[in-house]
Amino acid sequence: MLDPLFKPKAIAIVGASTKELSIGNVIIRNLQKYGYTGPIYPINPTAPEVCGIKAYRSLAEVPGEIDLAHIIIPSTLVPLAMEECGLKGIKAVIINSAGFSEMGEEGAKLQAEFLATAKKYGIRLFGPNCQGTINSDPALKAYCNFTFTYPEPGHISVVALSGGVGALIMQQLADLGIGQRLYASNGNACDVSIPEIIKYYGDDEETRAIILYTEGFSDPQAFLESAREVAAKKPILAMKAGRSLQGAKAASSHTGSLAGVDIATELIFEKIGILSFGDEGEMVRAAMAFSSQPNPTGNRVGLITNTGGPAVIATDVLVACGLDVPKLSDASIEKLKVTQFPEASLENPIDVVATAGGPQFRAALDVLMEDDGIDSIYINFVTAPFTDTDAVAREIVAVNQLSKKPMVCNFMTNLDLERFQKTMAILKAGNVPFYANPTDAAKALGALAKYGRAKQRQIGQPTIFADIKPAKAASIIEQASKEGRSVLSATEVYAIFEAYGIPVAGWKVVGTAADAVAAAAEIGFPVVVKVDCEAIDHKSDRGGVAVNLKDAAAVQHAVEDMQVRLGSFGTLNFFIQKFLPGGRELIIGASAERKLGHLVMFGLGGIYVEVLKDVIFKIAPVTHLEAAEMLAGIKTAALLDGVRGEKGIDKEAVIDLIQRVSQLLTDLPMIQEMDMNPVMAFADGAFAVDGRIRI
Amino acid sequence: MLDPLFKPKAIAIVGASTKELSIGNVIIRNLQKYGYTGPIYPINPTAPEVCGIKAYRSLAEVPGEIDLAHIIIPSTLVPLAMEECGLKGIKAVIINSAGFSEMGEEGAKLQAEFLATAKKYGIRLFGPNCQGTINSDPALKAYCNFTFTYPEPGHISVVALSGGVGALIMQQLADLGIGQRLYASNGNACDVSIPEIIKYYGDDEETRAIILYTEGFSDPQAFLESAREVAAKKPILAMKAGRSLQGAKAASSHTGSLAGVDIATELIFEKIGILSFGDEGEMVRAAMAFSSQPNPTGNRVGLITNTGGPAVIATDVLVACGLDVPKLSDASIEKLKVTQFPEASLENPIDVVATAGGPQFRAALDVLMEDDGIDSIYINFVTAPFTDTDAVAREIVAVNQLSKKPMVCNFMTNLDLERFQKTMAILKAGNVPFYANPTDAAKALGALAKYGRAKQRQIGQPTIFADIKPAKAASIIEQASKEGRSVLSATEVYAIFEAYGIPVAGWKVVGTAADAVAAAAEIGFPVVVKVDCEAIDHKSDRGGVAVNLKDAAAVQHAVEDMQVRLGSFGTLNFFIQKFLPGGRELIIGASAERKLGHLVMFGLGGIYVEVLKDVIFKIAPVTHLEAAEMLAGIKTAALLDGVRGEKGIDKEAVIDLIQRVSQLLTDLPMIQEMDMNPVMAFADGAFAVDGRIRI
Repeated sequence: MLDPLFKPKAIAIVGASTKELSIGNVIIRNLQKYGYTGPIYPINPTAPEVCGIKAYRSLAEVPGEIDLAHIIIPSTLVPLAMEECGLKGIKAVIINSAGFSEMGEEGAKLQAEFLATAKKYGIRLFGPNCQGTINSDPALKAYCNFTFTYPEPGHISVVALSGGVGALIMQQLADLGIGQRLYASNGNACDVSIPEIIKYYGDDEETRAIILYTEGFSDPQAFLESAREVAAKKPILAMKAGRSLQGAKAASSHTGSLAGVDIATELIFEKIGILSFGDEGEMVRAAMAFSSQPNPTGNRVGLITNTGGPAVIATDVLVACGLDVPKLSDASIEKLKVTQFPEASLENPIDVVATAGGPQFRAALDVLMEDDGIDSIYINFVTAPFTDTDAVAREIVAVNQLSKKPMVCNFMTNLDLERFQKTMAILKAGNVPFYANPTDAAKALGALAKYGRAKQRQIGQPTIFADIKPAKAASIIEQASKEGRSVLSATEVYAIFEAYGIPVAGWKVVGTAADAVAAAAEIGFPVVVKVDCEAIDHKSDRGGVAVNLKDAAAVQHAVEDMQVRLGSFGTLNFFIQKFLPGGRELIIGASAERKLGHLVMFGLGGIYVEVLKDVIFKIAPVTHLEAAEMLAGIKTAALLDGVRGEKGIDKEAVIDLIQRVSQLLTDLPMIQEMDMNPVMAFADGAFAVDGRIRI
Repeated sequence: MLDPLFKPKAIAIVGASTKELSIGNVIIRNLQKYGYTGPIYPINPTAPEVCGIKAYRSLAEVPGEIDLAHIIIPSTLVPLAMEECGLKGIKAVIINSAGFSEMGEEGAKLQAEFLATAKKYGIRLFGPNCQGTINSDPALKAYCNFTFTYPEPGHISVVALSGGVGALIMQQLADLGIGQRLYASNGNACDVSIPEIIKYYGDDEETRAIILYTEGFSDPQAFLESAREVAAKKPILAMKAGRSLQGAKAASSHTGSLAGVDIATELIFEKIGILSFGDEGEMVRAAMAFSSQPNPTGNRVGLITNTGGPAVIATDVLVACGLDVPKLSDASIEKLKVTQFPEASLENPIDVVATAGGPQFRAALDVLMEDDGIDSIYINFVTAPFTDTDAVAREIVAVNQLSKKPMVCNFMTNLDLERFQKTMAILKAGNVPFYANPTDAAKALGALAKYGRAKQRQIGQPTIFADIKPAKAASIIEQASKEGRSVLSATEVYAIFEAYGIPVAGWKVVGTAADAVAAAAEIGFPVVVKVDCEAIDHKSDRGGVAVNLKDAAAVQHAVEDMQVRLGSFGTLNFFIQKFLPGGRELIIGASAERKLGHLVMFGLGGIYVEVLKDVIFKIAPVTHLEAAEMLAGIKTAALLDGVRGEKGIDKEAVIDLIQRVSQLLTDLPMIQEMDMNPVMAFADGAFAVDGRIRI
């Protein structure tokens, strides 16, 4: 579908300019400089040629077929130009011009206008207010962009909402000598969207890894679906900016999108195994490792160093990335004893010492390659003046080319010296990912290993519960909706919970003290009595809740007391519920998320949620694994296992409960907010004790 | 004192070698290449010259005076060479040779031997097993080192425990074009120590900022004292590696120092205002800003950008660094309206848009310079092909040279293009700190601002309490020590607390049930009864504690019951104490730290310390400000203010208590460990309820 955009056979530039450095000139120069293999048709009403290429007064005059056009003309002229593109049979248009939806209402109207025209002719639109695309395929070399970085062909493809960040990523990849495949920065994205581009990259065989920069998605669900498929096939490295409130405000000011910190994007990344980065430099450096290295199958790193301190730094960073630098096997250490200098350290890190040459490095590398207790290799390589650094580099390359285990190299040198430039060239030609300091190299390996773990994480399918009554729950919500009520009554909430098999503490709603006593006897003492009246909101504060009532007299007294004190609010009902002392107070909540479904929240109740904000979110539907991750993911997870001799809680019951909530939300998308606060969890079972649902 | 080392008038190389690339050759070449202005005397038993310089068979044969010698000979020969250095009147020796304390006992013996000789002659020793020093002073140009980076003169001085990391830092500074002043990497550090070097850098007028890499200190107290003085005068940027257990193990393997994660080093940094980094690249990039920019006087950043996305990233990172990107004043916005393009964003970030040239940038910079609500400036500068980037750079430089407010620039370009190399050269010549991506630039500004905050933080002097009886406490400890007891009895602990004015819940130790009842009546009910018997350790688990005893009968019963159940352990005493219900459970503890004094710990008691490990440490003596920071610094600090309508605790009482503990520890250094668990804190007062002291 996007072939005309990424693999154009002929390109027209509507708004081609003879003015040096103008966009209508730079794009043609870029196509020429990069070596575009198809015909270029500058469209200019007066100039006979632009950049040495014959120009045409209009698209209609162009003799050949055109599948892609750039439009670089004042915004008000774009709708007409689009009509001409349609008549010429153009299939894709990149609108570099600005002045549309990002500039307010008038611009948005123009955008709608040309979009309608494009739809009419079946033209796919890229932009407006965008940079464009690049395809480095040596057979095509399409540089449909006004940026100034000319990437070597390779296997990393980049898509960025922001042209500034896209160009930055492309430049940094180039600076690290990393080849690139496709590039896209689609600005206002009125038609071709990031989800579509990601899908296209997923289908592109030459793309082995994808870098994504975004500030949020206009259609998160579409992204989730297309990216899920792609992420299953190849690594996606992503950065979401606008994490802080002020950052989100800055994002909103430049894209005209909604402001507000969204946590959903990160949750999507997590759900489908996209690697999330908070630092663009770190992401690009990780891409260098992804472009050449296999995935680690585990977390155990073997570290070779010819200098002490950088190995300490690397070890710290590897450990912080969740990796392990374990002691080597006795067999490995024995082998090292034979091959290394006497002053070498043979534990892990292996310090081959500064005087180590090719043979010492190679022997250490071979040992790590063969040790079953090691999954990946980290190398510190400082170019000591008194060693044959080329020989060391050649051995590293030779082992790298076995592609048995991933490796990264921290290459510490002075590149002003020709001698070491040569050493670097050997590493580069041998596809060894190398970095200028230990932290950077260790983080790149950390990212590889994190991806390895993400690949092994099988989140599975959401459990489909059969013992539920969706129709009953739906009808309750329908009725409330019909009556114009957005907050459901306690009876309705509990009925919905019961319809979904969510265990609740035994309950009954009654109107009189006598019925309350009877209900309590049926439920079993002790009980809680809560006033049930829509007009009373902070029940606790108003004395509308009485807990731990141990006998009939206490229940009767509590109800009668509330009738006296709260009668003025209107007709009172009373919610009688089993009182469950002890146990661990949990909170499970959910909220609807724009164009995505629901976010489900789990945490410990009370001060843990109020003061520590110690909660975990996941996107519904939540699988068994994800629910288990929620329990394990809170900072206070140890409390679930019991402390000070307490028994731990019944985690499977809570996991079951979270999944039932998830199914409820998936079945009933009209629910806007819901919480169970608290859920009381015991060594045997967990029960929703209080619940709220807002539709 | 260290002048002969850092400002040598003449240098001998004992072990000068004709062998290319050997250390004894490289050091001479480095001195030549760097342009050392004094005489060089190669010492070689056979060669008539080395590197084209006349060589001498021995130091004794050298005609002129020598103040510094390198020694690069087999380790066993070093003691003899040291004797010769002494006879020649040499004042400082850099021992590059390895094979000493880092290699075990035999090496340590050799090290002790030449150290004794050096002491005899008053020679200062640098190393052994080290790189050496560099002084970039154009009048001296002393490169006493075998590394391969040749720094330009400047104002950053570097000291690194690890030569590998030292060289890396030097190289990265050079790669960023940052001038350097002094360099030192002292390996085994048998004599000249990092504290001394720091002090020397502190006294060196040309050194404006110091970079320190360490894996811990052999004498932390010495470091604290010398660095405190220096940090008051100039910024110290520091990195401590070996943060993880595996990292500390790696450090110990290459330095032969003690293993184990030390938290004291970071606490020293915090106490005296040293900026701590976890990433060596980040530290070096921060140094670029420190080498040219004034300190920010506040946290409010004005952001100018000519591209959208990088401003979002920068805002996120600035906010994460504790900075603020506030809305500009109306007056500033009005001024911007006049000078900026209509499509510019005039809030903060100011998006001058990609077409902005010198005048637009300058006008925006001027507005930020004049706005009293802005303390520092961050610039995103992407070199759009269609703008006069040199003009933009010149305006940035012009404003930078006013030195009114600190600025950093994220300069996004393709340096393969000559045109942009020129733009970069303008920024460089103008001392603008510039970076290749927004995160790096924002973090550098974040470091500047953090230093600004550290300068403003006045920790003050520790409170000296007059209402204490140090002699009484000392005599109790002396007595216990005399009796060979390391764990003090409850009576002793409480007596020491009382001697230092530490409020304790009323208590008495008795031997019989009758006395217990009398004591309880005197203290006031309710009380706690605890068995007091050295042989019983887990009192609670053994039923040796009874709480909330409300009357005489309950006390009598509790004591008699314990007498029956626990009598077999030996003579039982009973500790009767006021029971204090409610209140917030805190923990205050302390432990002796090798060569530093004590670390004091504060946290919330119970599960908060057990599960969340939510505690803060400081080095004693703790000032009022530091004690207040301890209360404010725990993650659960909000609980101290009261939640769910509870009253907050009496923070001043806790701060007072922490300071009294601190004074107690300072007065009684023989205390190894101490804790008060819990301290019960109320809206009015705080009381130690249980205490332990180990000497």
